[in-house]
Amino acid sequence: MSKYQKPAELYDGLRLHQNENTGGCSPKVIEALAALHPDQIAFYPPYESATRACANYIGVDPDRLSLVNGLDEGIMAAAVGYLRPRPDGFVPDAIIPDPAFEIFAIDTEVVGGRPVRVAPNPDFSFPLERVLAAITANTRVVFITSPNNPTGVSVPMEAIRSVAHHVPDRAVVFVDEAYFEFSGRTFIPELDRFPNVIVGRTFSKAFGLAGLRIGAITGHPDALEPLRLAIPVYSVNIAAVAVVGAAIEDREHLRGYLRQVEESKALLYAVCQRHGITYWKSDANFVLVFVGERLQTVLERSAARGIYLRDRSTEPGCAGCLRVGTGIVEHTQRFIEVLEEVMCDAR
Amino acid sequence: MSKYQKPAELYDGLRLHQNENTGGCSPKVIEALAALHPDQIAFYPPYESATRACANYIGVDPDRLSLVNGLDEGIMAAAVGYLRPRPDGFVPDAIIPDPAFEIFAIDTEVVGGRPVRVAPNPDFSFPLERVLAAITANTRVVFITSPNNPTGVSVPMEAIRSVAHHVPDRAVVFVDEAYFEFSGRTFIPELDRFPNVIVGRTFSKAFGLAGLRIGAITGHPDALEPLRLAIPVYSVNIAAVAVVGAAIEDREHLRGYLRQVEESKALLYAVCQRHGITYWKSDANFVLVFVGERLQTVLERSAARGIYLRDRSTEPGCAGCLRVGTGIVEHTQRFIEVLEEVMCDAR
Repeated sequence: MSKYQKPAELYDGLRLHQNENTGGCSPKVIEALAALHPDQIAFYPPYESATRACANYIGVDPDRLSLVNGLDEGIMAAAVGYLRPRPDGFVPDAIIPDPAFEIFAIDTEVVGGRPVRVAPNPDFSFPLERVLAAITANTRVVFITSPNNPTGVSVPMEAIRSVAHHVPDRAVVFVDEAYFEFSGRTFIPELDRFPNVIVGRTFSKAFGLAGLRIGAITGHPDALEPLRLAIPVYSVNIAAVAVVGAAIEDREHLRGYLRQVEESKALLYAVCQRHGITYWKSDANFVLVFVGERLQTVLERSAARGIYLRDRSTEPGCAGCLRVGTGIVEHTQRFIEVLEEVMCDAR
Repeated sequence: MSKYQKPAELYDGLRLHQNENTGGCSPKVIEALAALHPDQIAFYPPYESATRACANYIGVDPDRLSLVNGLDEGIMAAAVGYLRPRPDGFVPDAIIPDPAFEIFAIDTEVVGGRPVRVAPNPDFSFPLERVLAAITANTRVVFITSPNNPTGVSVPMEAIRSVAHHVPDRAVVFVDEAYFEFSGRTFIPELDRFPNVIVGRTFSKAFGLAGLRIGAITGHPDALEPLRLAIPVYSVNIAAVAVVGAAIEDREHLRGYLRQVEESKALLYAVCQRHGITYWKSDANFVLVFVGERLQTVLERSAARGIYLRDRSTEPGCAGCLRVGTGIVEHTQRFIEVLEEVMCDAR
């Protein structure tokens, strides 16, 4: 069984390797945290108010949303709910278009399901024909991330619709929209017409709450039910519950970060173009960059300056690629400096 | 499938129904929370330091401990890791001595395993002979809570040893020691000799961190591995990680609460004796009380004064019983007032 290679615990330098908001959460979140009382800490958390705030922000009925302890919990719950083998010999398939967030395949295997990996297109556009061809009567989940991680490439709504139409009756399409705030594109308005689609959201990325672990899964109650059963009743903590409303309300903080992400990506694209480096235009807060044989040099020189990047070169279609967080402009510039040095040295 | 009946979200009154520390967490926890920075909130949490602090407190090697998002996550992970059916027709059994924390049976069923319930003794002493008789080649987990919930009765170490000797090779004994701090008795020192025993601990109860969701599972790495695979890599949040050390270090706060629990139980026992009410001597921070046909009256009168209790009358062996948190003396006295009124009215 493959195991998730958890990144080392690196906190002293610049964390451009986990798609976090390196500018930090809103100061309103810190204020809300500081207002917590000893008895709130000692009590199992209430979820009604936070569920309403999240549902309102996401644009769904609160009955169609469950808070999760980070979207990771939602993914594991999808695996437990839909991908366990049955004693009669049935082994469910999970279809995973590559390259993908590695947790999909790992969780599928953890519960005994079978990951069916679909090879990527060279431009990382969604391989719709191959995904449809991979669907069988055994398919129970199709995992789609849009914009995708680690490529940053969005999946067309029409492709998601098409997949949802083709899966068998008891299957669901799990659309991971962890990076929605950067793309602005969502399947949420279509959920009423697609009761077999589950959309996952998180407050870990744009809102900068990765440390507090809060996300949400949304969809038709029948589709969500197997996931809800697999999620412990008090899985989201009081700190997350107490601050998520403040995080959502501080739109200026969010907009400020989104502006920086746009500027960061533009800067990085320009440098790549100048040096003839291949990259993929990203709808997220990171960019996949092909540095080829210079990969180790870039990683090592960055590490030497305390800049952490994610080596994605062993992912399907990603040979020679690294993934770099492109959030706060000043942070992106520190990476660009290293990249330019390596490229100039190579002339 | 049975479903957990989650208690209503009641926070305005006196919460004597969820075995929480109603005195609240240590003020040091609040200080540690207030010291969190925006970037710590935005980053996925580091676990090394909190793992070491918890392992040191519990008395195990850090390699033999995993933090969990509340012990509920550890229980679900045990179910996912040990109780899933195999496609060759094998359906694992989980042995659950009744009355039990209801999550054991629910999680077993959620993953497709078979709960095997063992009837209680009238005095709620551990039904060792019946548990041993229930063990078969299909047994994969025996769930034991000591002190037990909802009875407060401890399980003798010798009984746990005996069960661990009798289970088949691939099975584990899951010992839930959520209420250890109140009993002072633990299987931890025996873990080296029993590689098939997993001990679960939590900081939700005596330490008053239920809202933050942090517990730990300990045992031989081979026994823990299936659980570890089922736990998302960042399941424990930064607030819990940042404060758990401070909670552990504030022994005076812990001791103060433990003293109140002892006094509360003594007060309640005395009232029960005076009125001829049956109760079970508890090694935890709650007491199971048999009020028989007065159950509804006690529940209703308590609710009318904003005191929440847990009706346990539908649990095996618990007809006519309610469970009441016995923590802060002043809180216990408020319940005792109601109980005495009901008993006097009945004369």
